[in-house]
Amino acid sequence: MWKGKGLEVDLSDGSVEKIETPSSFLRDFLGGRGLGVRILTEHLGAGADPLSGENEIVFATGPLVGLTPLSARCAAVTKSPLTGTILDSSVGGSFGVWMKRTGWDFVCLKGRNKEPAALILDDSEAKIKPAGDLWGKNTGDSFDLLERSYPGSKSFVIGRAGERKVLYACAISDMRHAFGRGGIGAVMGSKNLKAVVVKRSKARPLPLDPTAFEKAEKEAIRLIRASPVLSGGLKSYGTAAIAGVVGYLGIMPRSNFRQVGGKCELIEGEQIARSGKIRRRPCHGCPIGCKRVLLKEETSEDTGEGGKQREIDVPEYETLWAFGPNLECEDLEAIFEANRICNEYGMDTISAGGTIAACAEEDFERLKEKGRLAQWLKRIGEGEDEAGQGSARVSPKTSMTIKGMELPGYDPGGALGQSLSYATSNRGGCHLRAYMIGPEIMGKPKQIDRLSFAGKPGLVYRFQNLAAAVDSLIMCKFSSFALGEEEYANLLSAAVGEYYSPEDLLKTGERIYNLERLFNLREGFGKKDDTLPERAFERVDREEFERALFEYYCWRGWDEEGAPRQEKLKELNIEPL
Amino acid sequence: MWKGKGLEVDLSDGSVEKIETPSSFLRDFLGGRGLGVRILTEHLGAGADPLSGENEIVFATGPLVGLTPLSARCAAVTKSPLTGTILDSSVGGSFGVWMKRTGWDFVCLKGRNKEPAALILDDSEAKIKPAGDLWGKNTGDSFDLLERSYPGSKSFVIGRAGERKVLYACAISDMRHAFGRGGIGAVMGSKNLKAVVVKRSKARPLPLDPTAFEKAEKEAIRLIRASPVLSGGLKSYGTAAIAGVVGYLGIMPRSNFRQVGGKCELIEGEQIARSGKIRRRPCHGCPIGCKRVLLKEETSEDTGEGGKQREIDVPEYETLWAFGPNLECEDLEAIFEANRICNEYGMDTISAGGTIAACAEEDFERLKEKGRLAQWLKRIGEGEDEAGQGSARVSPKTSMTIKGMELPGYDPGGALGQSLSYATSNRGGCHLRAYMIGPEIMGKPKQIDRLSFAGKPGLVYRFQNLAAAVDSLIMCKFSSFALGEEEYANLLSAAVGEYYSPEDLLKTGERIYNLERLFNLREGFGKKDDTLPERAFERVDREEFERALFEYYCWRGWDEEGAPRQEKLKELNIEPL
Repeated sequence: MWKGKGLEVDLSDGSVEKIETPSSFLRDFLGGRGLGVRILTEHLGAGADPLSGENEIVFATGPLVGLTPLSARCAAVTKSPLTGTILDSSVGGSFGVWMKRTGWDFVCLKGRNKEPAALILDDSEAKIKPAGDLWGKNTGDSFDLLERSYPGSKSFVIGRAGERKVLYACAISDMRHAFGRGGIGAVMGSKNLKAVVVKRSKARPLPLDPTAFEKAEKEAIRLIRASPVLSGGLKSYGTAAIAGVVGYLGIMPRSNFRQVGGKCELIEGEQIARSGKIRRRPCHGCPIGCKRVLLKEETSEDTGEGGKQREIDVPEYETLWAFGPNLECEDLEAIFEANRICNEYGMDTISAGGTIAACAEEDFERLKEKGRLAQWLKRIGEGEDEAGQGSARVSPKTSMTIKGMELPGYDPGGALGQSLSYATSNRGGCHLRAYMIGPEIMGKPKQIDRLSFAGKPGLVYRFQNLAAAVDSLIMCKFSSFALGEEEYANLLSAAVGEYYSPEDLLKTGERIYNLERLFNLREGFGKKDDTLPERAFERVDREEFERALFEYYCWRGWDEEGAPRQEKLKELNIEPL
Repeated sequence: MWKGKGLEVDLSDGSVEKIETPSSFLRDFLGGRGLGVRILTEHLGAGADPLSGENEIVFATGPLVGLTPLSARCAAVTKSPLTGTILDSSVGGSFGVWMKRTGWDFVCLKGRNKEPAALILDDSEAKIKPAGDLWGKNTGDSFDLLERSYPGSKSFVIGRAGERKVLYACAISDMRHAFGRGGIGAVMGSKNLKAVVVKRSKARPLPLDPTAFEKAEKEAIRLIRASPVLSGGLKSYGTAAIAGVVGYLGIMPRSNFRQVGGKCELIEGEQIARSGKIRRRPCHGCPIGCKRVLLKEETSEDTGEGGKQREIDVPEYETLWAFGPNLECEDLEAIFEANRICNEYGMDTISAGGTIAACAEEDFERLKEKGRLAQWLKRIGEGEDEAGQGSARVSPKTSMTIKGMELPGYDPGGALGQSLSYATSNRGGCHLRAYMIGPEIMGKPKQIDRLSFAGKPGLVYRFQNLAAAVDSLIMCKFSSFALGEEEYANLLSAAVGEYYSPEDLLKTGERIYNLERLFNLREGFGKKDDTLPERAFERVDREEFERALFEYYCWRGWDEEGAPRQEKLKELNIEPL
């Protein structure tokens, strides 16, 4: 049976309420993204200002977190200050596992603290503590302080960008993992919430059907180990491995999407691997470990002695692209430094790079001057540059955004299913609502024709539903390179002791997707927003795109304006908002 | 570089010619099905009588045969006496590996021997030997005699059905493996060719790029081991495992397709596993081993002593279905016996069952009388029953065939992609030209909506091309549950030492598929034949089907009558026939 508990914390008055999670929430929305969306849509009225005390953030774990590999995740759901849509974001590392062990399914944060504060969570309660000593600090220093105050704990924090409400400020956990997109950090900043700390708990989550779980997990691990994408490319080179494929197929955007194509060896995984000693820094319990650091030997400033090693984060593909080819930048050190600054200040690298690209596209040459990119990013992080508002606000004509969110590094014209997935994503220009790059570019689970819309609307529909379910289990998106609906459903069924067929799982994802859609419709989003930036239509046929969008609505059971029909809501057992 | 050699054997005058295989044949058609189709289309004129000396059979191995697991196969290509189309068929066991070791890529058999003959192949030559002693014998006795005469050899033979030119007579290898569909056995019978024997050779095929091959093979084996379908269901229960899924989804045809649905536990793998001791009988080097036998203890007739064990072949899913639910037969022993008779006489079980179903559909009750099914099959095998002509000829109104070939055990209405694959199959009603059952029913590599045509034309197009390539490598179709285009391309590239991208591999399959289509068009087949039996349209919407067919032609670059356009032939570098 579904049972769970959560916390509702009102920052305005410091009250903490313990809640029994309604079992229908868990059964129908699972956890993570789904649970967060369910709670947020219930709490939030139409038109709430994302940066006011009206807005809320729900942090949630899920039924598989901490139970199976690739599940060390925590979801955050809020109304995005960047896009005005519903926003969910998910972080890896180990925070999710620590939170799961406390036994709280979710923490819902309301209101606004008067002074800088931190939320301290353990297995019995949550407390709001002053955090004036942390305020004004970037993420690295904040972690140092928190580690001293709460040894053995895990936390996430915002940097100065979040404090200054940069609209794409993120929150950082475990030094290098981010609730990346859409401005979770700005919402935290607006609430004067600097950090969330979870203390170590001794409890361990257990599956309710251990025998079935052992079988399902064994099968999943076998598939993960066998996957060439996971245990080959990603394990060897991290997400930088993607640069090679994307370059090979000529779909890497350049110069703020004004051009497309060509290889970029500079940012390819194999190339980066040659630049020094690389070490994997896996999320909790992950056998792949796509995160990695570069070890640099340093001379001690105090003693003048060498031999001290410093770890420099190797940026993800999206970051390498956003600060590399998309800015015409060919200086790998500058890209690494841009990544470091974003992590320090707590800013989404895709939106940061995309906004700079939109602002600077007439003069990339100037941007190549040594240190200029770093300076610009610091000014944004300090709240001193209007580029902190995102490209859609500050440079709408050159902005490569959908619903106000900057696009990642795959040209829409080179993967038409992905373009439809971009356009219909509930949080804007994001590749993770349905990673059509899998079948269209990497041929997983099956190569399909990337240059045709035929058959894509139905596939995007299913991929989006599956992704919503996976985000609610929670498992890492990359697991989809090895696992299918069946394996996820088997893991879930065994974990919760109730049978979910693969179709049940997809239906759950569909329910989540539709509830998110209802939220966005209420905020005034609709068909007009399910589109691509104008520049993309230089390479995507507009008529074909519109036909595909219409077909997609048909698959979804939405009307011609993109609103779910009554019958669809009834089928999914959700109420109109 | 592509190099190879083959044999052209004229049975009419006993001449044997050694041929250097044109390197373009190998590069552009690989081996197996592709090589056979290339040779046959060059040799055969329009309108050749399949059962005359005009017809030819090409037996061919392929670049991966004997090199990698799931590749112990040999292809046969001829003009089918059952359908009049081009026909390729492929056999497992170990014959293919033995033939590969001789170094001959192919043997092309022409003409007609005056007296019963056998072809004896070794690594230096081929000889035609009299086989009067074998003639009139069924397959079991034939193998006994051949084993005595050629110890250590591998062979395939026809039974009495092939001698009597039953139009769906097959050839049997290694006791239980069949060149199953379309009447290879009848073509052999018409040529007075009873058996093909290949002697053991010491040579071992080697990949041309051993390092790359080792890597590609390791990856393939890891994926095969991890696949739940291969290393779970098929390894545990053989293809009878399919009965459970097909029954669960309610798409198992019954009573000659007059009904559909319901489970049939009788023929499910788990049920059969309970009926006695089961042993796997894998093809050469296969880690899955889906073939299996039931061990039965027997009392010796001579001594009256017990303890002697007899092996009874466990029928494949298609056979279990064809003699079970499709004939309303609920007697597992009768089904096993029907299978045994078909193997002994050398007859395709799907067409045998389908023809009996079409002839008997008004009176299945009578067929249930003990021994009646067995008697009927023996009469067919002896050439004494007109049902040996196939249902399209003897009972056209109730015949569930496409282009004259009987359909297998998946209802077209329950898997619409599969229905399109049936209709456009180059050898008629066959599930193996594009096994859409994979994604539509088993959710591998990805679950797609089985009850919609949307997106299917493009997928069928790609699946058919991939299947044609896999049939030419040659690898077992089941490998597709674990491997994708990329893994096949890597194996091929390493084996032949020339780079094939995944798209190159698909293009090769497309070339083969189009050449087969040209053959069929020349024989008068066309759009009118790309359809389903009338009864199927009770459950398939005709208009939707026709739209999907049209869309399929568009994907293929074929005109409205289903003929490849000039540009497509040019793109594929093949000449019009």
